[in-house]
Amino acid sequence: MKSSLNPAEIRQLCRTGKLVTPTPGLASGYVQANLVILPKLLAFDFLLFCQRNPKPCPVLDVTEVGNPEPKIIASGADVRTDLPRYRIFRNGNLGEEVTEITEFWRDDLVAFLIGCSFSFEAAMLRVGLPVRHIEEGKNVPMYKTNIPCLSAGVFSGNLVVSMRPLSMNQAIQAVQITGRYAKAHGSPIQIGDPAAIGIKEIDSPDFGDSVTINEGELPVFWACGVTTQLAILEAKPELAITHAPGHMFVSDLKDDCLGF
Amino acid sequence: MKSSLNPAEIRQLCRTGKLVTPTPGLASGYVQANLVILPKLLAFDFLLFCQRNPKPCPVLDVTEVGNPEPKIIASGADVRTDLPRYRIFRNGNLGEEVTEITEFWRDDLVAFLIGCSFSFEAAMLRVGLPVRHIEEGKNVPMYKTNIPCLSAGVFSGNLVVSMRPLSMNQAIQAVQITGRYAKAHGSPIQIGDPAAIGIKEIDSPDFGDSVTINEGELPVFWACGVTTQLAILEAKPELAITHAPGHMFVSDLKDDCLGF
Repeated sequence: MKSSLNPAEIRQLCRTGKLVTPTPGLASGYVQANLVILPKLLAFDFLLFCQRNPKPCPVLDVTEVGNPEPKIIASGADVRTDLPRYRIFRNGNLGEEVTEITEFWRDDLVAFLIGCSFSFEAAMLRVGLPVRHIEEGKNVPMYKTNIPCLSAGVFSGNLVVSMRPLSMNQAIQAVQITGRYAKAHGSPIQIGDPAAIGIKEIDSPDFGDSVTINEGELPVFWACGVTTQLAILEAKPELAITHAPGHMFVSDLKDDCLGF
Repeated sequence: MKSSLNPAEIRQLCRTGKLVTPTPGLASGYVQANLVILPKLLAFDFLLFCQRNPKPCPVLDVTEVGNPEPKIIASGADVRTDLPRYRIFRNGNLGEEVTEITEFWRDDLVAFLIGCSFSFEAAMLRVGLPVRHIEEGKNVPMYKTNIPCLSAGVFSGNLVVSMRPLSMNQAIQAVQITGRYAKAHGSPIQIGDPAAIGIKEIDSPDFGDSVTINEGELPVFWACGVTTQLAILEAKPELAITHAPGHMFVSDLKDDCLGF
């Protein structure tokens, strides 16, 4: 897939079934987003959960009830067809994985588009900070913590974090750089002490892959969008639709606009 | 009223009926908040309106349905009694002004606490920037603009702005300073060109008082919380309760935490 394609071209490829693979590296400089679709009945609780937990759940756009167009971040787009791959959950159980969701769409559904770490990783790379899982061609390591999110209605659960190893000097620079991307998880939540947030084995992440931590490096932890997915699984809504991991919505928003 | 009282002491004075006057200048360094109370039926639309228009409507806290405690910004507080003065609106019409709302409270009400400009004005004063309406002992001048907010369900309307005159050098510094207070309206939305945002007569504000603009100064415009109130009036909910102008909720949050 050419990385020079613009977001509208990528969405068009998804819509016509020509792109069904993960999106990292595509449309460099543009914001990619997590997708969560829920019935209107749960929309207030979920929006409030996001509002109360902005680091793991930075809301970029919310569609009108029954309308699949995320007007604010991608005018003309359609969340039913414009992602490469989706997951269908019923009562908290994973059902089928599909490449479009037109047949599952209903008039009472609301789609939430939520910022993701690709935006701040690109910013780290631009200033020369290492992003280990990219260097090693792996998925980012993610861990369940003992930090409870602020609950909202039916949604609750502990914070999930992603980890990138850095020296202390690099970690301080990363606080400054990633702190500018408030809508993409923002600054780290912990530097150097996994036990303090309930992580027992740094080499055994709960999701994703283990990465190398070199001599002199500390594990640095950021709030992670998977937090949202766990909260949804625990709430067991009769229907929830999300992107498949790594198969994100590519928006028209520029990464560098996420701090304003 | 002693400005040395802490937020809990001020709320206690409100609760016992001993403070019924405006709150500017009280509990210096602590965030004061606009209050909007609406029935749950409208809560999703209103939260989404705020989410889509974060500059005029920065959400600091939302209470659980039927629960009057804003746990996040003031544990133990009660929005029914802890402000000095309230306004009751029915179907978009202003009814009585009261000093507590216990008798109006219902199990289906949700309270929204929304950031206000006091936080960034204090920051401007700390770096020596002038805040003209404070110098002149007036209310800040506010204007309706021709800029439509992003609508959400029943809530829509144009942006309302507040104005503070500054030299261009000062305005640039004010962009940097107030931009740090994203949860208190953030950076200005216009510098020096009222006509560009639909303001015809700078000396005739739609709300508040006219202030002096000195030779060499430009009018600088910030998004204003009154935007929210106009959107509510236009939506004509069967019941809405707000703070009375200037009679804010004094929270336990520090002004300097509003940028994170």
